[in-house]
Amino acid sequence: MIEPNAQMVIATYRVVDHQKALEKRAEGIAIGLTIGSWTELPQTRHQQVSAHCGQVQGIRVVEEVADGRVVAEISVGYPQANFNGTFAALLTTVFGKLSMDGEIRLVRLQIPDELARQYPGPKFGVSGCRSRYGVVERPLIMSIFKACVGLTLPELVSQFEEQALGGVDLVKDDEIFFTEAYATPESRVVAYREAARAIAERTGRETAYAVNLTGPVHQLRERARRLSELGAGALLVNIVAYGYDVVADLAADEDVNVPILAHPAVSGALYGGNTYGVEADIVLGQLARMAGADMAIFPSMYGSVTLGQTATERLIAHLRSDTVHKPSLPAPSAGIYPGLVPQLYADFGNDLIVNAGGGIHGHPQGPAAGGQAFVEAIRAVRSGSTLSEAAKHSEVLRIALQKWGTRD
Amino acid sequence: MIEPNAQMVIATYRVVDHQKALEKRAEGIAIGLTIGSWTELPQTRHQQVSAHCGQVQGIRVVEEVADGRVVAEISVGYPQANFNGTFAALLTTVFGKLSMDGEIRLVRLQIPDELARQYPGPKFGVSGCRSRYGVVERPLIMSIFKACVGLTLPELVSQFEEQALGGVDLVKDDEIFFTEAYATPESRVVAYREAARAIAERTGRETAYAVNLTGPVHQLRERARRLSELGAGALLVNIVAYGYDVVADLAADEDVNVPILAHPAVSGALYGGNTYGVEADIVLGQLARMAGADMAIFPSMYGSVTLGQTATERLIAHLRSDTVHKPSLPAPSAGIYPGLVPQLYADFGNDLIVNAGGGIHGHPQGPAAGGQAFVEAIRAVRSGSTLSEAAKHSEVLRIALQKWGTRD
Repeated sequence: MIEPNAQMVIATYRVVDHQKALEKRAEGIAIGLTIGSWTELPQTRHQQVSAHCGQVQGIRVVEEVADGRVVAEISVGYPQANFNGTFAALLTTVFGKLSMDGEIRLVRLQIPDELARQYPGPKFGVSGCRSRYGVVERPLIMSIFKACVGLTLPELVSQFEEQALGGVDLVKDDEIFFTEAYATPESRVVAYREAARAIAERTGRETAYAVNLTGPVHQLRERARRLSELGAGALLVNIVAYGYDVVADLAADEDVNVPILAHPAVSGALYGGNTYGVEADIVLGQLARMAGADMAIFPSMYGSVTLGQTATERLIAHLRSDTVHKPSLPAPSAGIYPGLVPQLYADFGNDLIVNAGGGIHGHPQGPAAGGQAFVEAIRAVRSGSTLSEAAKHSEVLRIALQKWGTRD
Repeated sequence: MIEPNAQMVIATYRVVDHQKALEKRAEGIAIGLTIGSWTELPQTRHQQVSAHCGQVQGIRVVEEVADGRVVAEISVGYPQANFNGTFAALLTTVFGKLSMDGEIRLVRLQIPDELARQYPGPKFGVSGCRSRYGVVERPLIMSIFKACVGLTLPELVSQFEEQALGGVDLVKDDEIFFTEAYATPESRVVAYREAARAIAERTGRETAYAVNLTGPVHQLRERARRLSELGAGALLVNIVAYGYDVVADLAADEDVNVPILAHPAVSGALYGGNTYGVEADIVLGQLARMAGADMAIFPSMYGSVTLGQTATERLIAHLRSDTVHKPSLPAPSAGIYPGLVPQLYADFGNDLIVNAGGGIHGHPQGPAAGGQAFVEAIRAVRSGSTLSEAAKHSEVLRIALQKWGTRD
């Protein structure tokens, strides 16, 4: 018999309810959303079924609100035996019907190692990406295509080249690039790779291309393999739009031999607010990593709309903590410019993707200068210099600091 | 050149913002989230790129809130050419980055027929389900397994038989039934079909089994085909947990020759609240039907937590409206008992699944009596009789009315 206490998946929910109702509600979740009920079961079945019964782990009142109601956190343990290694099973079990039960939000998910191992996790992880991109010690630098929709292949190649000339490690597609009217993902991968090789002869660095993975699910693995063979640098995947099990399939496939870059599109629909939905650190950190995101994009602390300090710290902890899976590279997005690099080092350390769109394309001397300014800023911080000092010897950096300032 | 006005996907968002900021915000969405920007494009490119540019369709202030801010609805049109017939493209484009932009909620989605045709829609629809289940004119009746987790195959078969003896048309799995420790989906389909056939000799009705479709995505179509061949009555699919594109793959597959019953598990994480996320009628009505749900479960108006009148009416309208797709059967869930049947007819008409769990299993004479009580209630309403009158000739109905009452 399985010990019900041992190794459960523990979900913590934030609810708004009358304090007197909490205990009954917690029991209702633990029992009602697993085995249904004890009352109609004959004694002879109890032992077998009990191995599948949920168990209340704790109830904690957080604060009082109006008319006798409180905000509380209810923790419920679900036996591992109820799951099957898919995200569909995980999410449906811990937040299926329950998600529709009024003001309730999933705020924490503790998954025992034995179950976590059934999820693929990153195929490359931090060290695999570093090997792959030839960046041993410093943060990686990624540029974002300004826009892709409506441009022809030569125009797109030209944009790619402008960014690659800046010496960035990666260039990512616009995640809304779905049309194949002018240039298929396959043609782009081939054309950008050719351009990157030519440019590498000048800069010494071959910029990798994170191509947006698109199309029907049943064609996705085949496409991912093909793009991998053609030389894609990474696969940009809209993980919430497609679903975590779709991502897991890619990460688990040995013939998809290319890192996965997770995009957070649509995730705000899940984590926005605080009385419904699922916390951002779970959506974009914990589940993203379990599903196989080697690199995970999330809203940075430097943009106009942030996740807030706590959520951001937890998200990064999920990407980096010591689990059964390789760690993922965090890629904070929004509001990043060269003058911010010392702050990025302070906040993130070395294992980070410095990810910029406007901060590269908006450089007065163009995107190549924009990328180069980031390269110089990182070099400066690593050598112990201030940016202002380094700017004396770098025009592109000086101009970037002039435009965006620095916290140095 | 594509006329930008013609045939756009129009998304309407509810935002909370300063009234003076609305116009700029709308423009930011329309342009910034499609082609990015006009300013750096040479004149020569404008025509081609303009075919992909979003367009503000309208801004409507709904009400004022604190400190100069208002609740407003912003409508933006996105050119069809930006999409590719997947839900990933649809959701990422209309609510990708935008979902993370603070207090914003997707409240309406208008999809032109030409694009809608790229989505499979229901393979069976209402008439196909009626043929399939041999129910020509009346509402269908579906019983819900009380609980499945932890039960052996003989125990599960016994539960199935108890329900089938009530003469119900369908019996659905508990949607959290993922473990295969005691009984695989395949073995259940075979065993229940055998039981259903034996019972059909007594009741004249062969009850169909809606089996929970589970497992990794890359195995799902294969599994769905096999379950179809083995005689599954329907596939119960957790559509939000798996993702709409996974569902669409099943609906589009000709070898998956069995209706899809969509379960709303996890959807509350998307539609709960009113300042973030996506409206319930879109999540459980519009997108469910486009993805191929032949039957769509959603929280009923009779349970303890409802979607509210407006959302419910819109959801049902989405399932039934005259579009390029076959209509889906609505399956309202929660708080349904035999005495409610006249109300169900008044609210839904004939094309409906009468879907009960407690309202069948809680019958004092057992689940078979519970199912039979629904059969009698429907028969009564169709013949123009009141339930009270019919109960004089039906013990199971009389007892059901005693327990749960009636609005007759």
